[in-house]
Amino acid sequence: MFEYKLSNYNQLISNEIDNLDLPTQPANLYEPISYILTLGGKRLRPLLSLFAADLFLEDEKVALPVAKSVEIFHNFSLMHDDIMDKAPLRRNQPTVHTKWNENVAILSGDVMLVKAYQSLDKVKDEHFKQLVNLLNQCAIGVCEGQQLDMDFETRNNVAIDEYIEMIRLKTAVLLGYALEAGALVAGADENIQKILKNYGELIGIGFQIKDDLLDVFGESQKVGKQVAGDILANKKTYLLLRAFEKADADALQKLNFWVSKTDSPQEKIEEITKLYIQLEVNTDAEILMNEYFAKADKLLLKTNLGPRKLKDLRAFTNLIINRDK
Amino acid sequence: MFEYKLSNYNQLISNEIDNLDLPTQPANLYEPISYILTLGGKRLRPLLSLFAADLFLEDEKVALPVAKSVEIFHNFSLMHDDIMDKAPLRRNQPTVHTKWNENVAILSGDVMLVKAYQSLDKVKDEHFKQLVNLLNQCAIGVCEGQQLDMDFETRNNVAIDEYIEMIRLKTAVLLGYALEAGALVAGADENIQKILKNYGELIGIGFQIKDDLLDVFGESQKVGKQVAGDILANKKTYLLLRAFEKADADALQKLNFWVSKTDSPQEKIEEITKLYIQLEVNTDAEILMNEYFAKADKLLLKTNLGPRKLKDLRAFTNLIINRDK
Repeated sequence: MFEYKLSNYNQLISNEIDNLDLPTQPANLYEPISYILTLGGKRLRPLLSLFAADLFLEDEKVALPVAKSVEIFHNFSLMHDDIMDKAPLRRNQPTVHTKWNENVAILSGDVMLVKAYQSLDKVKDEHFKQLVNLLNQCAIGVCEGQQLDMDFETRNNVAIDEYIEMIRLKTAVLLGYALEAGALVAGADENIQKILKNYGELIGIGFQIKDDLLDVFGESQKVGKQVAGDILANKKTYLLLRAFEKADADALQKLNFWVSKTDSPQEKIEEITKLYIQLEVNTDAEILMNEYFAKADKLLLKTNLGPRKLKDLRAFTNLIINRDK
Repeated sequence: MFEYKLSNYNQLISNEIDNLDLPTQPANLYEPISYILTLGGKRLRPLLSLFAADLFLEDEKVALPVAKSVEIFHNFSLMHDDIMDKAPLRRNQPTVHTKWNENVAILSGDVMLVKAYQSLDKVKDEHFKQLVNLLNQCAIGVCEGQQLDMDFETRNNVAIDEYIEMIRLKTAVLLGYALEAGALVAGADENIQKILKNYGELIGIGFQIKDDLLDVFGESQKVGKQVAGDILANKKTYLLLRAFEKADADALQKLNFWVSKTDSPQEKIEEITKLYIQLEVNTDAEILMNEYFAKADKLLLKTNLGPRKLKDLRAFTNLIINRDK
């Protein structure tokens, strides 16, 4: 049943994206948009909108404009983030600024942000204004998160709390918005909309900690990004921050040495990974991640929807939690 | 009377911009927004919204959310365009990507685009959806225009018609939107909204041709950008395209020589300017510009508003037409 639903939803979202009907000209503006949207992402976020709507309505198609908007918005943020992070690969393929150039990636990204708003045009008039307001807030949160992430690169005193707030903004608010907006257009009570929003944010934080883990400990083929890119870029991930927190004098010296080293990437990755394992920060990350997932699941009780209703959303969340890429 | 109104409107817009109430953190996200919004632009576009509303209502304050949105949107596009054009100066001050860096300019620009939507929150609910749709269309047009402009840089066969369509998108649709949206929130008939939109686009095309002229023949102190930046960047302006069109074999050879020369900027500016004058393309530009302004003015007759009503809008348009910076 769940498998069938998931495959059905995936099909619905693919149809939406395939039928975007973008103009052909200017080609340098629209081709990058088709390119990134069909790179084969997992489309977890728009699926969340459909699973949220499914809690309240037989026909979850009402949430398709929202799902489309969420997916386009997500890819806008990827396109711009990849420029800022100088990322060469996305989903095993060259990023837009690599395949075209930075100007193209800036401008195509801008159009995608506009298209995320434009996609909301098809929802019922009574929901339109609230949805635009939610998207505004979500978008601003995502940009603030990205800025904090960049600010952290040049700071040496980032606390783990600050890191969690950064990933809440950069990653989790979009998952919260996807669920909240899906529930809204399906006629859910405001109270339940907010619970689902919080649920999405908690899942999102766990999701990002998992992402940090996969960057170092995942199989690069599956992840589709540069191997251990976070280590090479000295990204202040949970793993690195926690390692600094736990390291004794000896480990701290090694950590500082390898973080400042730039000329032997392969060795840098190996040595820092070794330190992570030695300090057991990967275990800490898994524990923390599971705490967020458990907290999220507990929230669902407050919706009073009952376990039968919640079965499919939970199954989908489990897919996200247990992914290996 | 007009002077008083103009100064009053300027004050109203300044208040809106001063009271944006941006968060202080992350500073690298919000400081660039305050910076560009208070660089002292002429704020012609939001003024257009107020003058449009004034045609239909005693209290043009109803158009302030639109005016604010227009000004923020305009500055978003400047911030991103300046990155793409590698422009060092804007209004005699360092551009955001120069004063901070490109990443900051990308992300602060993104937030401004969101803020342009968010500013529409204060209009009457009955107008909200239509305004968002108009802003979507306008924004997409502006991005398409910017892409065409960049595409033209590497093309050698740009026709003057294509150039006019490019500046219509890049510059004029925003003036059209500013007027249309101002009229809409003031309760104008749809028919008149569309006339004002077209009026704005015609003025906008003339405005951009004037901009091309000022870049070469204006006083750089007043213009506040790099002197003859268009010539140095080999921008396919009306002047250059028309010069290629009119040049005989001898002039063509000189033109090609100086266009491809990159090592003596001052001489390049002088020689190309000399060719423009010799071929009288500056005169052609003035004639064409005035044709657009005349066509625009003729459109106003179709509004049936009568010359007394139209007096102030005309006076403001004349300010735009006769500006020397």
